[in-house]
Amino acid sequence: MTIHQTDAVVIGAGPAGLFSVFQCGMVKLRCHVVDALEAVGGQLSALYPEKPIYDIPGHPKVLAADLVDGLAEQAAPFAPVYHFGVQVDSLAREADGRWRCGLSNGESILAPVVIIAAGGGAFGPNRPPLEGLDRFEGSSVFYLVRRREDFRDKRVVIAGGGDSAVDWAISLSEVAAKVMVVHRRPKFRAAPESEARLKQLAESGTIDLVVPYQLHGLEGEGATLSAVVVADLEGATKRLEADCLLPFYGLSTNLGPIADWGLTMDRHVIAVDPASCATSAPGVYAVGDICTYPGKLKLILSGFAEAARAAHSAHGVVHPGEALHFEHSTTSGVPARG
Amino acid sequence: MTIHQTDAVVIGAGPAGLFSVFQCGMVKLRCHVVDALEAVGGQLSALYPEKPIYDIPGHPKVLAADLVDGLAEQAAPFAPVYHFGVQVDSLAREADGRWRCGLSNGESILAPVVIIAAGGGAFGPNRPPLEGLDRFEGSSVFYLVRRREDFRDKRVVIAGGGDSAVDWAISLSEVAAKVMVVHRRPKFRAAPESEARLKQLAESGTIDLVVPYQLHGLEGEGATLSAVVVADLEGATKRLEADCLLPFYGLSTNLGPIADWGLTMDRHVIAVDPASCATSAPGVYAVGDICTYPGKLKLILSGFAEAARAAHSAHGVVHPGEALHFEHSTTSGVPARG
Repeated sequence: MTIHQTDAVVIGAGPAGLFSVFQCGMVKLRCHVVDALEAVGGQLSALYPEKPIYDIPGHPKVLAADLVDGLAEQAAPFAPVYHFGVQVDSLAREADGRWRCGLSNGESILAPVVIIAAGGGAFGPNRPPLEGLDRFEGSSVFYLVRRREDFRDKRVVIAGGGDSAVDWAISLSEVAAKVMVVHRRPKFRAAPESEARLKQLAESGTIDLVVPYQLHGLEGEGATLSAVVVADLEGATKRLEADCLLPFYGLSTNLGPIADWGLTMDRHVIAVDPASCATSAPGVYAVGDICTYPGKLKLILSGFAEAARAAHSAHGVVHPGEALHFEHSTTSGVPARG
Repeated sequence: MTIHQTDAVVIGAGPAGLFSVFQCGMVKLRCHVVDALEAVGGQLSALYPEKPIYDIPGHPKVLAADLVDGLAEQAAPFAPVYHFGVQVDSLAREADGRWRCGLSNGESILAPVVIIAAGGGAFGPNRPPLEGLDRFEGSSVFYLVRRREDFRDKRVVIAGGGDSAVDWAISLSEVAAKVMVVHRRPKFRAAPESEARLKQLAESGTIDLVVPYQLHGLEGEGATLSAVVVADLEGATKRLEADCLLPFYGLSTNLGPIADWGLTMDRHVIAVDPASCATSAPGVYAVGDICTYPGKLKLILSGFAEAARAAHSAHGVVHPGEALHFEHSTTSGVPARG
């Protein structure tokens, strides 16, 4: 069984986690980073890489993916060790005061400091409760559109009434053979311009609005979908012949094992001392969306400032009694790239 | 007498002030911005525009001037009104609860909210205590080098022992007719490579090291310097024929009138509630280097997060009782440029 040792374990490779690596590096702490996803960026990479963000200081407009690239590049000189596609299942204190992070792949990491930057926890799409759903997932049922071209000349059923459903219905109607939108109410919860455009495309026959209906069942051979069965409010069903189903019912987040580590919580997030981002467990910090304190604003930039405070405080845990001369980067610079 | 009215007066157009304008704009508060300098950027523009900064999140390396440009561009859609080259001399509460900021040009601004983002306060060079100094300032005595070419073929006396003195001595020796460095000790406080280079240029006769000496007097006609008189530690003097004097004795900051506004201070900065950046005066906030609270880190990025908290809290002052739906910029966007 592999046991890694380092100064700080950063749980989560989203923006707050990546900037924690940088700030730890600035105070000479080495980091291992664990993320359930297969790459850096957290929600920014997984959910909206092409969305522009306007409130990152000094970036009047930056695409989420570009921000992630910048943050990863900024962390890189400090040579973080990434563990992708694994979760931290357990957190337990060793006799010597260090924390043992038990990973879902069976490995462990030992470190005096743990920085939890796990956002809303593990997140995933809300899945419709349909029999046999998992058989079609990844082949005929998708929760996000990676490439619009994948749906060219397909008969596509989109389920949901929010922005994602409406925007993708409009967009895919340009390439798909047929687009059907299933929603349990005639009214959509989308930007007014988008909803107007949807109605227009429905009137011209480009999009079929299947309302008020909800998903009822799936038909097909093996992993290949042939029809989506929908039901109206009285339970009467009808078959929509289709190649693909895109359920857009939003995302659910799940703190997962973190909720069981005995940290003091405030509703569903971790309560921290705002001065240091320290949790109720010594040497364990929480930064970004997963932490709260009086006045906390759930903004990406809050996570950046929290990462700096956590790293500063963590230095005292790793090197007790050693004075920290915390300098602006302009004074000390950062290490050259390897 | 001109009296302006707005939602928030931001004192200081440095990075924390500029980002305060953006964050106020995001919660629909209009701002006037007052700065003693003639342009945005504060110290970043005035002192080290070409210095790279490494610790701005998402910017692995950014020149101070480019960061300022980005922040100003980010604030621009919210149409801030800038008052450059003036100071806020007085802050007094009106009967209706608004604050009246009295400006050094005789104008006033009335607003329910004041955000002090004044950095270390007004800052300026430490001036040597020499008789008649002011007569030569701006013509023969300079505290910074704007253009190296201004010193071509001049006889230049540089005073001081730090990085600025050493770096400029090396640099100006390439264009000046003569460079003399006056320092009261033989040892310099500069980067080791720079000091070694200085010694090398002194040995080859390119630079005259006048050590251990200190400035004693100035000679010249009108505003034109002819010689700098220096004295050794016993008081014996000698004349250095020169066209220019560059005293590099560092910078001093001065809170100025802000210290007299009755705000609760902590040493030389303003104590704030970290949750809101509120000072002890209702509706008055302090953000950036001028504020402090437990765990405060004097980093540019701290000022950004503080600006967000101040703007959020200020919204409640300007629009009491009105719920604030504080959104990520990705949801609401920012106004289109005018």
